[in-house]
Amino acid sequence: MAFYVQKYGGTSVGSTERIRNVARRVARFHSQGHQVVVVVSAMSGETNRLIALAREVQSNPDPREMDVMVSTGEQVSIALLSMALMALNVKAKSYTGSQVKILTDSAFTKARILNIDQDKIRADLNNGNVVIVAGFQGVDQYGNITTLGRGGSDTTGVALAAALKADECQIYTDVDGIYTTDPRVVPEARRLDRITFEEMLEMASLGSKVLQLRSVEFAGKYKVKLRVLSSFEEEGPGTLITFEENEQMEQPVISGIAFNRDEAKITVLGVPDHPGIAYQILGPVADANIDVDMIIQNVSHDDLTDFSFTVHRNDFNNTMNIIREKIQPHIGARDVIGGDRIAKVSVVGVGMRSHAGIASKMFRVLAEEGINIQMIATSEIKVSVVVDEKYMELAVRVLHKAFGLEQVL
Amino acid sequence: MAFYVQKYGGTSVGSTERIRNVARRVARFHSQGHQVVVVVSAMSGETNRLIALAREVQSNPDPREMDVMVSTGEQVSIALLSMALMALNVKAKSYTGSQVKILTDSAFTKARILNIDQDKIRADLNNGNVVIVAGFQGVDQYGNITTLGRGGSDTTGVALAAALKADECQIYTDVDGIYTTDPRVVPEARRLDRITFEEMLEMASLGSKVLQLRSVEFAGKYKVKLRVLSSFEEEGPGTLITFEENEQMEQPVISGIAFNRDEAKITVLGVPDHPGIAYQILGPVADANIDVDMIIQNVSHDDLTDFSFTVHRNDFNNTMNIIREKIQPHIGARDVIGGDRIAKVSVVGVGMRSHAGIASKMFRVLAEEGINIQMIATSEIKVSVVVDEKYMELAVRVLHKAFGLEQVL
Repeated sequence: MAFYVQKYGGTSVGSTERIRNVARRVARFHSQGHQVVVVVSAMSGETNRLIALAREVQSNPDPREMDVMVSTGEQVSIALLSMALMALNVKAKSYTGSQVKILTDSAFTKARILNIDQDKIRADLNNGNVVIVAGFQGVDQYGNITTLGRGGSDTTGVALAAALKADECQIYTDVDGIYTTDPRVVPEARRLDRITFEEMLEMASLGSKVLQLRSVEFAGKYKVKLRVLSSFEEEGPGTLITFEENEQMEQPVISGIAFNRDEAKITVLGVPDHPGIAYQILGPVADANIDVDMIIQNVSHDDLTDFSFTVHRNDFNNTMNIIREKIQPHIGARDVIGGDRIAKVSVVGVGMRSHAGIASKMFRVLAEEGINIQMIATSEIKVSVVVDEKYMELAVRVLHKAFGLEQVL
Repeated sequence: MAFYVQKYGGTSVGSTERIRNVARRVARFHSQGHQVVVVVSAMSGETNRLIALAREVQSNPDPREMDVMVSTGEQVSIALLSMALMALNVKAKSYTGSQVKILTDSAFTKARILNIDQDKIRADLNNGNVVIVAGFQGVDQYGNITTLGRGGSDTTGVALAAALKADECQIYTDVDGIYTTDPRVVPEARRLDRITFEEMLEMASLGSKVLQLRSVEFAGKYKVKLRVLSSFEEEGPGTLITFEENEQMEQPVISGIAFNRDEAKITVLGVPDHPGIAYQILGPVADANIDVDMIIQNVSHDDLTDFSFTVHRNDFNNTMNIIREKIQPHIGARDVIGGDRIAKVSVVGVGMRSHAGIASKMFRVLAEEGINIQMIATSEIKVSVVVDEKYMELAVRVLHKAFGLEQVL
């Protein structure tokens, strides 16, 4: 008898047919004697529909009212799943974030969870109920409805698993686990049985869209066992995300190849190199609410240096304008160049901590294919390179093969 | 400077375009210095969409979960209206029924309001906000979401006006007031400037669908001034529903002609007339949750009487079966006859209290047109007759003319 928190995303509850499928799966766990708390997202498409409605009446919708609005998406899902379970003669009870209650701060549209009441859920579980909780939403100390931001249902699941000390938090999604890389790019990509939190963090932040970054951080912090599974297939083992490195067996050096083409790079050339210059360049960018990913500054020559960074591709034009108009004249840089036809490819693995030569092997493999590396950034467990967008898939394929990540047939 | 509670129904907020229109009207009141609390329904069609979804997963949806589900309709409306007001630079704040809070009993899908907190609303009004409250919904003492049943947004409006002691509760709808009868049947029908609560109750219960019966009772009980207005026309006076008869001027004898064709009549012939017979007949009907409207029993001959009543047309077959199978053999009645091709036409007016001859005038007018009267029922302020359905419109027209209700051109 175990205690599971199961989270089903928008695709998994995208129609009443699919909701009935989820109910059957939950009912099976329940009939085996397990205690189950289910977290659900809005039906796929619903959140976007609500946001579009809001924008029709207010071009920049008020965040408090936006949360009142979009939180209805999950509220519909919890009621439907609860009804679907009752139709299978399973006792079920739904709760909104306000009802649980999931207390958050008052940062509308991107609130953080502060505390979760357990009394109602524990009482309902002890009475034989499946408890269904709306993902993505909470309530602040003043009774205002809040939401956790996109993908926040994962965070709700992990937070509930942490608060209730569940045995496992199972994230049901449209893939059956975490892969060494995207199988659409590399058909030989292999499902990982387990991956560490650190690796998952790098994979998630680098473009594997399976799990929301924040929920992984959260799970790591509270030592919640996370498992990614498919809601469409029967009973696969999925991928377990562990908070301990696997010590029983030889750790593979590399776990996976992550990539994304959502970025653009900007380089400020001939910057006078003195203290505070990085802040002078990036301060105005941050003030415009533009997130910066990679930042690279090399050693200077003649007190001049080149400063490069990447931003989301959607922010490229805006960022170029800010740099050219507000910063370049001010700091006396020689020129500003940039491009949005780039891709970032990363090799990730906790094993590289103890293995030298991963980076050089990566560079060699890319060079053999004639792929020029435009930028390089490293952390303890990953090496990222920026390459021309058109070489991205080739780079992923050759790296996947070179590091031996292929499916063992 | 006045304090208004304004209620806008589903048609009035049926699109973002219409919501912006409502916002403009509310903003105008606000700019004139009035305090405004707005109650809104779900966008038209939304409640039905949600109910249909629920029925796809559970044939007879659980009432608690149904309320979780359908209450999202108004929640979307309040957020949209609040945003639309902010887009006009009007300070606005929305509340769900749980947030206000509108405390109800736990009778899911048909809850009754027990109490309304005023603190948040008063504080927001005093800070210059328009306050927007979700109609139709509340919360029980355990924190469960409840709904008041169909049309319950009117009740929310009246209850808020009563609790907050508003000067007037304005019900905005798709007609510009209460008419002497349905203008689609009698083009000369005239809008009434005022009508008493008693008359409105008779009009509402007899088929004028403008106001929900329960909200009128509620307004009468708490002495809330109700006004019915159009949300599509600019600034008509609408119809004021007063709790006092107008004493300044000569009271018109008749205020309006109500009608409906939703009923069917059933007559049990040759019933042995002894105490308890009415209960023996209607008890099993009530047990089947069938509402009975008119009930007529005339004096008996040879200890036998005929007992007639009307039910909703949808319940006709079911009722006939109950009477024929469970009751007729049991009480030894001679026969059971019935028909669902009938219509009820009623003449309503507080003035008839002091005027004899209204009923006889009504019967004479109908006789002159060759319309046979099948059943008659009277109250202090109305006379209802049941006629063949095919004569309904003719009956309404000739009565409307005979009682001088036409538009003064």
